[in-house]
Amino acid sequence: MRSAISAAEGVRGTTYPNPPVGAVILDVTGAIVGTGATQPPGGPHAEVVALQAAGELARGGTAVVTLEPCNHFGRTPPCTKALIDAGIATVHFALRDPNPAAAGGAAALQQAGIATHAGVLADEVAAGPLRAWLHKQRTGRPHVTWKYAASLDGRSAAADGTSKWITGPIARAQVHAERAKLDAIVVGTGTVLTDDPWLTARLPSGELAPHQPMRVVVGHTEIPSTARILDKAAPTLLLKTRDANEVVDALAEYTDVLLEGGPTLAGAFLEARRVDRILAYIAPVLLGDGRSALGGAGIGNIEQALRFRRESVETIGPDVLLSLVQFDRHNVGSTLDTDYSEE
Amino acid sequence: MRSAISAAEGVRGTTYPNPPVGAVILDVTGAIVGTGATQPPGGPHAEVVALQAAGELARGGTAVVTLEPCNHFGRTPPCTKALIDAGIATVHFALRDPNPAAAGGAAALQQAGIATHAGVLADEVAAGPLRAWLHKQRTGRPHVTWKYAASLDGRSAAADGTSKWITGPIARAQVHAERAKLDAIVVGTGTVLTDDPWLTARLPSGELAPHQPMRVVVGHTEIPSTARILDKAAPTLLLKTRDANEVVDALAEYTDVLLEGGPTLAGAFLEARRVDRILAYIAPVLLGDGRSALGGAGIGNIEQALRFRRESVETIGPDVLLSLVQFDRHNVGSTLDTDYSEE
Repeated sequence: MRSAISAAEGVRGTTYPNPPVGAVILDVTGAIVGTGATQPPGGPHAEVVALQAAGELARGGTAVVTLEPCNHFGRTPPCTKALIDAGIATVHFALRDPNPAAAGGAAALQQAGIATHAGVLADEVAAGPLRAWLHKQRTGRPHVTWKYAASLDGRSAAADGTSKWITGPIARAQVHAERAKLDAIVVGTGTVLTDDPWLTARLPSGELAPHQPMRVVVGHTEIPSTARILDKAAPTLLLKTRDANEVVDALAEYTDVLLEGGPTLAGAFLEARRVDRILAYIAPVLLGDGRSALGGAGIGNIEQALRFRRESVETIGPDVLLSLVQFDRHNVGSTLDTDYSEE
Repeated sequence: MRSAISAAEGVRGTTYPNPPVGAVILDVTGAIVGTGATQPPGGPHAEVVALQAAGELARGGTAVVTLEPCNHFGRTPPCTKALIDAGIATVHFALRDPNPAAAGGAAALQQAGIATHAGVLADEVAAGPLRAWLHKQRTGRPHVTWKYAASLDGRSAAADGTSKWITGPIARAQVHAERAKLDAIVVGTGTVLTDDPWLTARLPSGELAPHQPMRVVVGHTEIPSTARILDKAAPTLLLKTRDANEVVDALAEYTDVLLEGGPTLAGAFLEARRVDRILAYIAPVLLGDGRSALGGAGIGNIEQALRFRRESVETIGPDVLLSLVQFDRHNVGSTLDTDYSEE
């Protein structure tokens, strides 16, 4: 399943509106004989790619897929049919398909005499390649990640506005690699006027990545026609609003959206509760002054503080990356009885 | 050695001006027969406590000590003599004693026919129980840790000044446990006037811990005689200065000092380069407004940013604790060649 997850991760951003799925075929001895991932819309699904690679070695073998194989005729025939025709004996998948039109795959496979097992590394798939797609299926809205880089004291620039660089090169390279997997990147006009970013995804070589997300500029202020974000390297959408709900509605056709805006736009999205995940790159650096990474999220007192669930903490070179997500249930409660009434 | 380190950690704050040392005695079969740690000044050293616990079982056995056994008559006889008299065959220690008056222990042991091995878990001891003492030996100054708790966006209070609580109960309990191991805690008059803290170390039961650090209030503003920090629970020192160097000089007799001041005092200490370690408790919380944890450290642009070496990252309940220390050499350099000229 880890191989299937990594195959799926490799096609994130290129499968829209289909989910990025990964599949691995094992032969009767348990050896990997084929790996595949969802191809761009109209192309074959992950299972079909993996089965083609395996050829006759698939017969009597096992398929490991991140999502329940689809059971409907869309632009391509159902994957269940391909698995049955190839003579697969057992199918392991991580997550059931929440899309009613495509669901029923496991039942169809069982009817054909194939053993099916659901739930393998389900959490890892749900928090990994299928996160945004699952969110879209559940809520009907794109999944919004707010990504920012700041000093330990929460500043995104020094007193004079300089900010190159707070985080290290490894963290910055990771941000570029991640961009290539997104459907859209959102910034405010303020960021365009201050930083004049390209907002393109570039490879370590410096070349443009094959997939570029839609660049979205939000706000009423005019931006100059010479702004880099208006170049031909990727499409750009201008939205004359600062309302987070209107922005999210305008991006309804997308699945995986990254908010790279400055403190004001991030505050507007947070206040509207339109941030599903926060990726905070924190550098072991102090600035003591200068622009805060976040401003005006409408929080007046500590009771109104926006509290998130820590999903992961990792170190990236000298920096620390925190991933925070919305609480899906009330699990904030105190775990100690002592009243530590001073900090 | 891990048992010796944990014995040493248990007496941190009670051994001043002696180093908090831990010792474990193994018998000829390698079984632990005695554990000890440095007793308060005038009392026996770690090796002697451990040898007393081991009794005759020490003969032919091994001593494991966090610091090279001392070789001088201070308030107590040299530990080397105790080890020789007990018939110890082998001594393992982590760090050599940097204090010239006490050094030479290993040589004295070898002269008596005892095998000695230096360097066992030396890094762990140097970053652990002996950190502040080693710093004092090296620099002549107390080791200053700046500890603060903040939201992910670097705020120590909400817009209306409320701050209870940003971090969770486990992090707050840890702060109390740590206080009991310190020589002094420094705050500014601003913190006294705003928060009216006790700054005492309390046990999980709510009772005062047996050892209380000196409470130090820094600044020119008068504080009311009813301030909690002036109660009888622990001694308090008032310093009529805001100059970090003057504060550190006034605390020259101490070894392990914690700075718990607000943004202004922390800024003054950082600008004077008088912070040796930063302990940042970061909560998965956003405030978007309110008091920053750090202000005015004299940093005008990104080139002047204060950069630290990340020593550790750990999770404490919902919070993340970052430990940062001064760079001891230039190891900040870029590790990637690509010019990621936008973030």
